[in-house]
Amino acid sequence: MTPDELHDFLAEQFPQVKDDFRVQALTENAITVRLPVAERHLRPGGTVSGPTMFALADVAVYLMILSRIGPVALAVTTSCAIDFLRKPAAGRDLIAEARLLKLGRTLAVGDVLVYSEGTAEPVARASVTYAIPPAR
Amino acid sequence: MTPDELHDFLAEQFPQVKDDFRVQALTENAITVRLPVAERHLRPGGTVSGPTMFALADVAVYLMILSRIGPVALAVTTSCAIDFLRKPAAGRDLIAEARLLKLGRTLAVGDVLVYSEGTAEPVARASVTYAIPPAR
Amino acid sequence: MTPDELHDFLAEQFPQVKDDFRVQALTENAITVRLPVAERHLRPGGTVSGPTMFALADVAVYLMILSRIGPVALAVTTSCAIDFLRKPAAGRDLIAEARLLKLGRTLAVGDVLVYSEGTAEPVARASVTYAIPPAR
Amino acid sequence: MTPDELHDFLAEQFPQVKDDFRVQALTENAITVRLPVAERHLRPGGTVSGPTMFALADVAVYLMILSRIGPVALAVTTSCAIDFLRKPAAGRDLIAEARLLKLGRTLAVGDVLVYSEGTAEPVARASVTYAIPPAR
Repeated sequence: MTPDELHDFLAEQFPQVKDDFRVQALTENAITVRLPVAERHLRPGGTVSGPTMFALADVAVYLMILSRIGPVALAVTTSCAIDFLRKPAAGRDLIAEARLLKLGRTLAVGDVLVYSEGTAEPVARASVTYAIPPAR
Repeated sequence: MTPDELHDFLAEQFPQVKDDFRVQALTENAITVRLPVAERHLRPGGTVSGPTMFALADVAVYLMILSRIGPVALAVTTSCAIDFLRKPAAGRDLIAEARLLKLGRTLAVGDVLVYSEGTAEPVARASVTYAIPPAR
Repeated sequence: MTPDELHDFLAEQFPQVKDDFRVQALTENAITVRLPVAERHLRPGGTVSGPTMFALADVAVYLMILSRIGPVALAVTTSCAIDFLRKPAAGRDLIAEARLLKLGRTLAVGDVLVYSEGTAEPVARASVTYAIPPAR
Repeated sequence: MTPDELHDFLAEQFPQVKDDFRVQALTENAITVRLPVAERHLRPGGTVSGPTMFALADVAVYLMILSRIGPVALAVTTSCAIDFLRKPAAGRDLIAEARLLKLGRTLAVGDVLVYSEGTAEPVARASVTYAIPPAR
């Protein structure tokens, strides 16, 4: 699937969150996803909330997997380990850089670094496992 | 801190999410927190989203820690490992049962089981680590 | 499988580690496994090494799963998240208390608290996921 | 610290495991560590055990941190999340590639990919957090 197809799929299947994620770059084993930060993502002090960073990491791996196996709404997250490394910069979008480490028959694993746009050090690191439904 | 004091603290410090969490029970090493499920927490099919379960687990451990060390807005999540075990039941609140495994000088660790209300098997399991600011 | 059957299975399939683990108690959803601490498990100061605690947590969940699905050597660990909470006491066996949170068709998840024998506070906490081979 | 200093430190502080790990390359934010596979690391079928992969990931991050802050035997692992992605190749050394994601005042975080030597796809992925003692 291409970035445009991924956006269409998100808009159709997950209308609640479709405006939260924009695919910026996509290769066979890597994806870059932007989260345009809005008021609903913030905590006091203007920093992005933990659940928002979690959601971005989770979606980045999901879209990476879908780009390889096609539109499978039923792929589900089975686990995530996330480290929060630094406070995100106020007023900056988040950028997730994800890579696919394994795409197996039943499980796929990706890991992600999340950055505040324009900064060199990651604000979070996550690894995410998805279960892939058998009929593909 | 008592449940009422925890609610007041949340309302003051985190007004964006204050309606999402209600302390149902609190002892020295355990807390029960309810998330009244609303439209904004749902995904297609009426199931609660992963980021919502993450947020509930994270807050449950946060409130557990605050009940012991007092209102410290600056305690920050440093890591979380979460397993999604089953699809939450549609139309039911989530209940988090958290216990405190360690309350150290700089780190606190809790673990959490999340249930759809009225069901015996957990929908998620999480462990959450917080860094505690030095001046307490 | 009973504790004796689990010991026989370990001795046959994993002769390298069979002396490291003794099932102390077993119910439908919980298991207690002892690691008799020996010189090879120690670090300077007499404390048990991290890999030893990891191995104990991993095996406890494995034996818990086997007790339910039978002797399946091919069940493999897919992930583990472990928190080291306190330094184990010198000269004491480790005791793992594991419970099964999910036993699905392809994945099983357990979590574990590890104690130095005779102490009330856990030295480690772990969650472990196993992939279960299809032919069962 | 240089690779030779790291080896000397391991030999002195952790004589039990000093032969298990060889620093192959070291830069400011990355380290490559080899585990020369021996009989004691193996499981039936000739594959390297999970605890061995865990130990390698843990040590790689430890040595990476030491190279930056000096010989601090008291740095302790507080958590590790590890994904086992593929079965290691029989008869091949393991190579860990670790990078340092955060080196804070009290916590350091690294992540690691582990390979069977000569293969392109990782056999395991791990993230490891260390607590750093205050007096440095």
